[in-house]
Amino acid sequence: MIKNVKIISIEKKTVSDGYLEIDGKIIKKVNKGEPPIETLNQVSRVIDGKGKWLLPGFVNTHTHVGMNLLRGYSDELPLQRWLQEKMWPFEAKLDRASVAAARRLALVEMLKSGTTTFLEMYHLFMDDFAEEIQDVGIRATLMRSMIGLCPTEEQEAKLKEAKEFALNWHQKAEGRIQTMLAPHAPYTCPPNFIKRIVEEATALQLPVHMHLAETKKEVDDHINEYGLHPVHHLDELGVLKEVDWLFAHGVFLEDEHLEVLQSAKSVAISHNPISNLKLGSGIAAVSKWQQYDLNICLGTDSVASNNTLDMVEEMRMAALIHKGIERDPTVVTSIDALHMATLNGSKALQFEGVKGIKEGAEADFVLINGNQAHLQPESQLFSHLVYALNSQDVTDVYVQGVALMENKQLLTLDEEKIIYEANHEFRQVMSRL
Amino acid sequence: MIKNVKIISIEKKTVSDGYLEIDGKIIKKVNKGEPPIETLNQVSRVIDGKGKWLLPGFVNTHTHVGMNLLRGYSDELPLQRWLQEKMWPFEAKLDRASVAAARRLALVEMLKSGTTTFLEMYHLFMDDFAEEIQDVGIRATLMRSMIGLCPTEEQEAKLKEAKEFALNWHQKAEGRIQTMLAPHAPYTCPPNFIKRIVEEATALQLPVHMHLAETKKEVDDHINEYGLHPVHHLDELGVLKEVDWLFAHGVFLEDEHLEVLQSAKSVAISHNPISNLKLGSGIAAVSKWQQYDLNICLGTDSVASNNTLDMVEEMRMAALIHKGIERDPTVVTSIDALHMATLNGSKALQFEGVKGIKEGAEADFVLINGNQAHLQPESQLFSHLVYALNSQDVTDVYVQGVALMENKQLLTLDEEKIIYEANHEFRQVMSRL
Ligand SMILES: [Zn+2]
Ligand SMILES: [Zn+2]
Repeated sequence: MIKNVKIISIEKKTVSDGYLEIDGKIIKKVNKGEPPIETLNQVSRVIDGKGKWLLPGFVNTHTHVGMNLLRGYSDELPLQRWLQEKMWPFEAKLDRASVAAARRLALVEMLKSGTTTFLEMYHLFMDDFAEEIQDVGIRATLMRSMIGLCPTEEQEAKLKEAKEFALNWHQKAEGRIQTMLAPHAPYTCPPNFIKRIVEEATALQLPVHMHLAETKKEVDDHINEYGLHPVHHLDELGVLKEVDWLFAHGVFLEDEHLEVLQSAKSVAISHNPISNLKLGSGIAAVSKWQQYDLNICLGTDSVASNNTLDMVEEMRMAALIHKGIERDPTVVTSIDALHMATLNGSKALQFEGVKGIKEGAEADFVLINGNQAHLQPESQLFSHLVYALNSQDVTDVYVQGVALMENKQLLTLDEEKIIYEANHEFRQVMSRL
Repeated sequence: MIKNVKIISIEKKTVSDGYLEIDGKIIKKVNKGEPPIETLNQVSRVIDGKGKWLLPGFVNTHTHVGMNLLRGYSDELPLQRWLQEKMWPFEAKLDRASVAAARRLALVEMLKSGTTTFLEMYHLFMDDFAEEIQDVGIRATLMRSMIGLCPTEEQEAKLKEAKEFALNWHQKAEGRIQTMLAPHAPYTCPPNFIKRIVEEATALQLPVHMHLAETKKEVDDHINEYGLHPVHHLDELGVLKEVDWLFAHGVFLEDEHLEVLQSAKSVAISHNPISNLKLGSGIAAVSKWQQYDLNICLGTDSVASNNTLDMVEEMRMAALIHKGIERDPTVVTSIDALHMATLNGSKALQFEGVKGIKEGAEADFVLINGNQAHLQPESQLFSHLVYALNSQDVTDVYVQGVALMENKQLLTLDEEKIIYEANHEFRQVMSRL
């Protein structure tokens, strides 16, 4: 039980001083005021949350943490040179140990900044990662992503690997792992390969995750090659109505595309504003997205283009940037941004049990030290959570009722060792370049 | 002496493992490697900076910390309603105690996030604040700002007060206080009043600080009323060549205005990207500013429109937003942003002695705990400082060689008491509304 804490309900937009009872993985009770003595006597442990705020953990719906050693490796280059001269040569030298070190570094970073759930789209050593997640206790939606710029047999081999991974790990780790199939993007996967992937996803009843309309160039190229915007092309291929989709970026989506997406089976879009800014891609029209029946969530993308996995920064950026672009301070409110950063994300990643701070929901939440200068006056919590919170204000992280961080100390990861090994593996990769 | 630390020179773009010797207010030596035994024996105190980075403190060149109790008091309203229904009624109820509490809260927030110098533009109880700054040890450029929408006698009374304040405090507190004169803005100060203020500033050899071209409406209104953009109007008034200017915002400045400003005596512009976004004002064309001989620095504006005083956030936003707007990842580099957040700022605030980590410079600097997951791999420091740093990574703050924060503990301010009093005073103001 956590008592004496400010409990924040994002859905109801309420803050109440009260206590939370946890039974196994589940929130058993959310009550105002002090817990009765008889209840206190029944519970195995009581944590005093004085001065703290309790709210859902952050959900990062698009990243590639296998790339976590590439933070700052290259900034401020034009996209093609950045990829061809920097990213791809470095990634080609990654091995099992360096990818593992990168991922552990990412797990530390995510937990310390209050992320309880994330989506990993990557192609290397995904089984290793699923096993690690099982041990560490965080929640993740995983997929072996596929680039289809290769012969059909190779495509099919990748798809087989992706399917096997998905089947092996779907709903494993006590339900903390979900899986998807993931064609990398329309510009890296020929139409027939996308159709094949969606065919298999339909048979397995899995959602599909894909990059979509991230850069102007990729959209223009697509129109030149196929005569259609990628969204219209997917529609023509008939794949949009077959599965649940989660797209990343969507920087170049206009009303005509949003209408098509709205009429699909179900579409979530992961808004990645910081990565889109840093790579010079542009700014997605999120206040326009909000006019459609689409589930809008947030992601950081990888640290090669962000350069952190900090969902607090991402949430704040989502709340700020559209106001400036549209010269309208009323668009994308703090409550909108909080939804995108938490509940919309767990829905998009298909963790239906993670539904906020309420009775019967899975007990995924964070505690925040509200007793700091930049979070005063203490009466404006919903504003502070978006416009003033610092990710390092997160002191405790719980997933399925289990503490993964207490008073800023990680309980299932050795932070010091992980930082040491990340630097060691980084130097190893550099020496192979 | 601080030894065993990574010393960052922003000007030279170098990182060296070494030590720093401080003599009184001044950096006496910056050397690589280990200090010799004879030197160690001579110094009064040796601090081990293992795992830490040493760099200039951040300089916030535009804020109104007297408003610090208004954080989150109102967000997401159209500008006029925000001002008329929320800001002004609240500010009308501020008294000496509530302004003092607001400012102390701001001092805590600024020091904890690595700000060593700031500019305060406000009209209430400035003498109290100057005295407090003298005691606390932070560095500040202060001014009693003036709104001229009143009869000439009242204008002159304000100007007299502003002049007296400036004269009393200029270069006081061992040189840690500078002063300026400050007409609030062209839309709140009639042309004749601006001329009078510049006349006095010229006589006193003081710089002038003013809001400029923050919103489209204010610029359009100015053109309607005077037939001129505010910059052309200032030029016509003959005031640009008389004094050193520091303008805030400049969201609506085109090439023709930048050319005029470049030909003035000396012009610095404080870029406030987060405030400009949050209020829906727009995005200043900073990469265009860079083509002119103008000193570009950064400011947070007040927490009523930011909602923090966090210069790390401001610096990161400055480095990100222009890349996205211009769809060009090469504009406003991390080094540009670091200069804007530090050295350009101290120059704009006329602290000529605060000139980075070099021998003979005043010893204003911060230490950062580099031993954290989000700052790895450790080899990309200049990238991490802008794109990955969290303001709470700042562990130590020095101004004029004096520690104001050590290991995250403030030495000249009582944080707990200040947070308590800020909330108390906030409730007092609310009860008067
Ligand atoms: Zn991606
Ligand atoms: Zn201002």
